[in-house]
Amino acid sequence: MNKGERTKTAILEHATGLASQVGLTGLTIGVLADDLELSKSGLFAHFKSKESLQIEVLTHAAQRFSDTVVRPALHEPRGAPRLRALFERWIAWEKDVALPGGCIFVAATTELDDRPGPVRDRLVELQRAWIDVIATSFRKGIDAGLFQRDADPQQFAQDMYGIMLSLHFHRRLMRDREADARARRAFDALLERAAP
Amino acid sequence: MNKGERTKTAILEHATGLASQVGLTGLTIGVLADDLELSKSGLFAHFKSKESLQIEVLTHAAQRFSDTVVRPALHEPRGAPRLRALFERWIAWEKDVALPGGCIFVAATTELDDRPGPVRDRLVELQRAWIDVIATSFRKGIDAGLFQRDADPQQFAQDMYGIMLSLHFHRRLMRDREADARARRAFDALLERAAP
Repeated sequence: MNKGERTKTAILEHATGLASQVGLTGLTIGVLADDLELSKSGLFAHFKSKESLQIEVLTHAAQRFSDTVVRPALHEPRGAPRLRALFERWIAWEKDVALPGGCIFVAATTELDDRPGPVRDRLVELQRAWIDVIATSFRKGIDAGLFQRDADPQQFAQDMYGIMLSLHFHRRLMRDREADARARRAFDALLERAAP
Repeated sequence: MNKGERTKTAILEHATGLASQVGLTGLTIGVLADDLELSKSGLFAHFKSKESLQIEVLTHAAQRFSDTVVRPALHEPRGAPRLRALFERWIAWEKDVALPGGCIFVAATTELDDRPGPVRDRLVELQRAWIDVIATSFRKGIDAGLFQRDADPQQFAQDMYGIMLSLHFHRRLMRDREADARARRAFDALLERAAP
């Protein structure tokens, strides 16, 4: 990376953490400039518009998500170990110090679901990719005879993401210290139900 | 209700629908005045501040939630019928035309989880009441011998809410037409697992 790219990456890193707290729609070039003590004109040179800043933040977060959650998990053996790695790495991602407000994609979902436009489109694309990672990992487990032959990968993905979303709710809003343990029990039960 | 109360209720009804789309923090007295074509000063007379408007919207929505979801469900027989009624009525609530953006509490959760203050406190209070309704309904089912004696009501509540949150995500963001059917299958499996 050259200096310009490094600067931009550092700004995106900071913007992602900020968006996890104030929301993606709260992340304007003005807010980011104040927070970083940079000039608005300098940030405009990097991002052109609020919308493109928001899209770049989503893309940057997705890259980090892929590096820390998805790719390492896909190195685990098929079946339960791979799905469990996705689950545990997602929990660690939620707690990452770089995301003081928790998973930026969870927050962006309820924020953008009623706001048509390119930022929502990008979020849908990224969330579809994540659901597909879960469903495909499960399907490969079926193909390898590690899960019930007639189990439905989309059903598994919706159920698994529900455990994560409820964990996010119980921990982030309710500050419930038992939430992690309950989420793990729910996930164990889900895997058990899928066993052949 | 006198005329002043009726007017205020009508304003709150509208404000609740608007908040389901633009978010609770997007709901300012100015935005509401524009939307209703009323004067800001008239709305200030009703609500005093943005914060008290937001708290009153949450309280108003909770009243409707109680009337349409919780109280009718609590008239159902203990055990599975009562929990199923809570579940089905929640799905209907999510689709209510008065909430074009879906469940206002789900949207408010990710919006407010990092914003300490009286609006967040009120949301936590209302969400705790909702989780308690599920857990208490489940506990009464255990007491009546309708669920496993050693089942954990808090676990059931966290699991059940996860199915709802994932349904919200798949329907609202992903526009997935199969989401309802999958949520119902997940809920059936959850009840089945709890059966004695």
